[in-house]
Amino acid sequence: MRTSIATVSLSGTLTEKLTAAARAGFDGVEIFENDVLASPLTPEQIRTLCADLGLTIDLYQPMRDIEGVPPDAFARNLRRAEHKFRVMRRLGADTVLVCSSVSPLAADDDALVADQLRRLAERAADHGIRVAYEALAWGRHVNTYRHAWRIVEEAGHPALGVCLDSFHILAKGSDPGSDPKGIGDIPGDKIFFLQLADAPYLAMDVLQWSRHHRCFPGQGDLDLAGLLRHVLRAGYRGPLSLEVFNDVFRQAEAGPTAVDALRSLLILQEAVGEGGAPAPVVPTGIAFTELVTPDVEPAAALLTALGFTRTGRHRNKPVHLWEQGEARVLLNTGPAARRDGTVLAAVGLESPDPAGAAHRAETLLAPVLPRRRAPSDVLLDAVAAPDGTELFFCATDRPRLTSWKRDFEPTGERQTDHGTGGVRGIDHLALTQPWYQFDEAALFHQGVLGLDAQDSVDVADPYGLRRSRAFSTADGSVRVALGVGPAPGGEDDHAQHIALATDDIVTAARRHLSAGGHLLPIPANYYDDLAARYEFEPDELDTYRELGILYDREAGGGTFRHCYTRTVGRVFFELTQRDDGYRGYGAQNAPVRLAAQHEAGAAG
Amino acid sequence: MRTSIATVSLSGTLTEKLTAAARAGFDGVEIFENDVLASPLTPEQIRTLCADLGLTIDLYQPMRDIEGVPPDAFARNLRRAEHKFRVMRRLGADTVLVCSSVSPLAADDDALVADQLRRLAERAADHGIRVAYEALAWGRHVNTYRHAWRIVEEAGHPALGVCLDSFHILAKGSDPGSDPKGIGDIPGDKIFFLQLADAPYLAMDVLQWSRHHRCFPGQGDLDLAGLLRHVLRAGYRGPLSLEVFNDVFRQAEAGPTAVDALRSLLILQEAVGEGGAPAPVVPTGIAFTELVTPDVEPAAALLTALGFTRTGRHRNKPVHLWEQGEARVLLNTGPAARRDGTVLAAVGLESPDPAGAAHRAETLLAPVLPRRRAPSDVLLDAVAAPDGTELFFCATDRPRLTSWKRDFEPTGERQTDHGTGGVRGIDHLALTQPWYQFDEAALFHQGVLGLDAQDSVDVADPYGLRRSRAFSTADGSVRVALGVGPAPGGEDDHAQHIALATDDIVTAARRHLSAGGHLLPIPANYYDDLAARYEFEPDELDTYRELGILYDREAGGGTFRHCYTRTVGRVFFELTQRDDGYRGYGAQNAPVRLAAQHEAGAAG
Repeated sequence: MRTSIATVSLSGTLTEKLTAAARAGFDGVEIFENDVLASPLTPEQIRTLCADLGLTIDLYQPMRDIEGVPPDAFARNLRRAEHKFRVMRRLGADTVLVCSSVSPLAADDDALVADQLRRLAERAADHGIRVAYEALAWGRHVNTYRHAWRIVEEAGHPALGVCLDSFHILAKGSDPGSDPKGIGDIPGDKIFFLQLADAPYLAMDVLQWSRHHRCFPGQGDLDLAGLLRHVLRAGYRGPLSLEVFNDVFRQAEAGPTAVDALRSLLILQEAVGEGGAPAPVVPTGIAFTELVTPDVEPAAALLTALGFTRTGRHRNKPVHLWEQGEARVLLNTGPAARRDGTVLAAVGLESPDPAGAAHRAETLLAPVLPRRRAPSDVLLDAVAAPDGTELFFCATDRPRLTSWKRDFEPTGERQTDHGTGGVRGIDHLALTQPWYQFDEAALFHQGVLGLDAQDSVDVADPYGLRRSRAFSTADGSVRVALGVGPAPGGEDDHAQHIALATDDIVTAARRHLSAGGHLLPIPANYYDDLAARYEFEPDELDTYRELGILYDREAGGGTFRHCYTRTVGRVFFELTQRDDGYRGYGAQNAPVRLAAQHEAGAAG
Repeated sequence: MRTSIATVSLSGTLTEKLTAAARAGFDGVEIFENDVLASPLTPEQIRTLCADLGLTIDLYQPMRDIEGVPPDAFARNLRRAEHKFRVMRRLGADTVLVCSSVSPLAADDDALVADQLRRLAERAADHGIRVAYEALAWGRHVNTYRHAWRIVEEAGHPALGVCLDSFHILAKGSDPGSDPKGIGDIPGDKIFFLQLADAPYLAMDVLQWSRHHRCFPGQGDLDLAGLLRHVLRAGYRGPLSLEVFNDVFRQAEAGPTAVDALRSLLILQEAVGEGGAPAPVVPTGIAFTELVTPDVEPAAALLTALGFTRTGRHRNKPVHLWEQGEARVLLNTGPAARRDGTVLAAVGLESPDPAGAAHRAETLLAPVLPRRRAPSDVLLDAVAAPDGTELFFCATDRPRLTSWKRDFEPTGERQTDHGTGGVRGIDHLALTQPWYQFDEAALFHQGVLGLDAQDSVDVADPYGLRRSRAFSTADGSVRVALGVGPAPGGEDDHAQHIALATDDIVTAARRHLSAGGHLLPIPANYYDDLAARYEFEPDELDTYRELGILYDREAGGGTFRHCYTRTVGRVFFELTQRDDGYRGYGAQNAPVRLAAQHEAGAAG
């Protein structure tokens, strides 16, 4: 299906917006009048630019409050419309959007509205232009698509049809005039245009909700796939167009936003059975994480104290493999190392079909990473996540698939058996995202990687609120928690951590300390509160207090114990113990942990 | 009256919050339990720290969903409360806040709630602690203060009273149980505590509104003075305490936020006749603006082309006075000049009582600026505005007051008479504020300077939304438009401009061009739209197009014509012509102007 995007969804000048839409791969654009008014390009130059970029101008939005007005006001509106139709001819745009009036002066008179729209459509037809009439959710009298369609039907002019907007339809919830089932009653050729926007459910004024909090399909809570099915069944064959008003997108760089936008349409088409992307390949585990570091010693010391063994050495690169149970960490001291310290640069996802997973990611516009490959290297499929983290789709010692470990020569060192205090594997990864990429990263982890999303939670940090959202496979074999910090540009923007799974956190924590490790001290006041909240075995709380172990219990009885290592560069580790089906990530303890980390940082 | 602030209203660690509150001059604090849990200080150490800082701990908030629950749950709650009472004794806090339950398990049974609160109060009394019961606006069953008071009355225990919270009372609007008039029915000694927060009217879910968008008194739309009068009339003599949940304050530096907070309480006390601040001295004009610049040539050339004359030279400093009509600009090339270019560093406000105005500003916590004074200098009273702009309260050639112009020796140059193309004076100043200081700056301009506020407006910039709000005297002799840019930390954060008043903008603009000035080019598409919107005299629109003059018309018929000079450093000028009582600032043209300025910047 053809794809289109409204210029208001992207940041920058008109030229920047058009360039970003074309580069991402959109077929067309809706142009907002303000973007034309503010542009130094003439309409003819804009038309040429679009043609050069391979974009059609699918819709133009120049007018409001046209219809249902007294004759003298309508005469003025027609005069203004004539001006705009001439501009549209210069632009080469053939469909004009007319939103239902919000003016307090508009009459509640369907016959009058139909008559005026018919006369507007006659004028438009003289210019070869079609009028698409759209019901705004807060329209004065016309605020459901069914009402708009009744009026269009009554007007009965071939150049007049409806524009359907997913936000305005789905935001009205239970209003029967907004039930998307009724879309099937509209002939497909009278649906002139389809605008798509998702939105998170927010209990607020619908106008504010619409103007500031729309997002791309799949980033919110509206059932866009259900709506699209109805529209396609009605016979609509026009473009899928994104009209998304969002305060963040207005500020973010247009290029990545346009890619994010087109990806959302590809995933939406897949949801209605129209997509061309290969099926999702859900990962089955975390094969490895890769830290790049300019100074290997602190990271190696931390891994050693955690009980990891340096089991392998890359054949051609300055990379070592550290293992414990199923947890694997690569330490890379190569040229990718940044002066600002150790970072989590890559994640290996265990995949039943690495090539298929990479192909899907590429089809869904994830940047494919070039691999500097030595002759003996295993070819790994890799793409970049929105925050730049490299994702490798790979296999670890599995039949018929080449294992990534073949690139590593054994050092001869054998893993130590730490008994119940050992690390079993990676419980989850926690990755902080730039604030303007949070929704994009969420869609990427769901749509591209095939993970399930949990709800977002807000967490109080001493210096602001953080938002966090977890993504995982159904069985928990892959868990990723994405966070976004409070202070744009602040130093915490890129904090990352690796949570390790143990079956006995107390033994694991003691072992870490006795091996020279450090654990984040947690204030005594926290344990006084735990004592007020829950009943513990004698000495149990003393042990937690001594080791800095945090505790959480879910309503279902599941419990979570966790503690934190020292930070190396931007990376730290968490030791965790999940019992009795605990599903969360200890979010309720995050404010105390964050404050303790600030404190530890302040203390040097 | 005693003043207090909740730790949740400030950013940082508990120690940082307490220090900021004490430095601003608060008498006490409300401590949120999370701040204690996350602190490495023991309760005894927190108590000592508060005592050393001269702060009392007026309230502690450790518990939720206490009452209206089945017996076994209540037993657990009492057990938890005992823990918390012991912590409060260690802290030296004698009042505990209990918010009405939001639990779906809470029973709608006033007798049960009263009985359980009485039993809680008995336990509290054993520790010398009072229980203040507060109705949350979204409480499950108890959500008005009148309902909370009925229950407290029924419980009849001396250690049980109500806590009144302005947000929870005023947010409920028309609910009769929330009408503040009924506060007079509560004996003053049963009002154990008063929490104050303002909020802008927002049509959204009250819980989200409360948790993210509260602000300090006078920064929102709630009638806090009306509420406070009722509370004082009831006989309440406890502290005025600010409990403000605000996403911005959570991130901003605690020190300035605490000053802003205390200022709001001082202004609120004044509003109810309890204040000690001297009366406002409303300014009567803008005496001068001062630009500091590392390179005087571009600014001097711009002023010359605008028709200004260099009429004076400061006796002791590298500062020159430029005049045209009543518009005066100082060009300062002294040591305050910054490497990043020309900035608007100071504003002289014409004041009927400069010393009185400065005294009021100082009483309301505006930082008084030290004056490096040479023996012959006129002593000027000056304070810093929240964004650091220096404000001088001064007199220009007025009887019985020393004129600031006495510091300037005449150069002998005389102002040219530019006829109708001349500048009459300063129409308004437009000052961009750091994003986290917008509300503070708004309160400062109203409360400290005595200006009236207009509504905020959102303006679309190509790279994000800008918020703007104007402040003025009733007669328009002083007009200041405060703006906040979209991108925190972006280069536009400090753009400032001086709008000059003319009676004939076309002549003024032509004169500027013929004197070698430049005017911001406005896209032709803007004028095509003007032609569609309004009818103009023949040639009128051509003239505007040629000169880059923007046009606005208000519903009442008032018109505004304006155009923009080249930018020097961070400063540019606007030529304006107001006719027929136009009251605005041309906000509807701002998107086009901002885009044109971005374009001009991009073009070099």
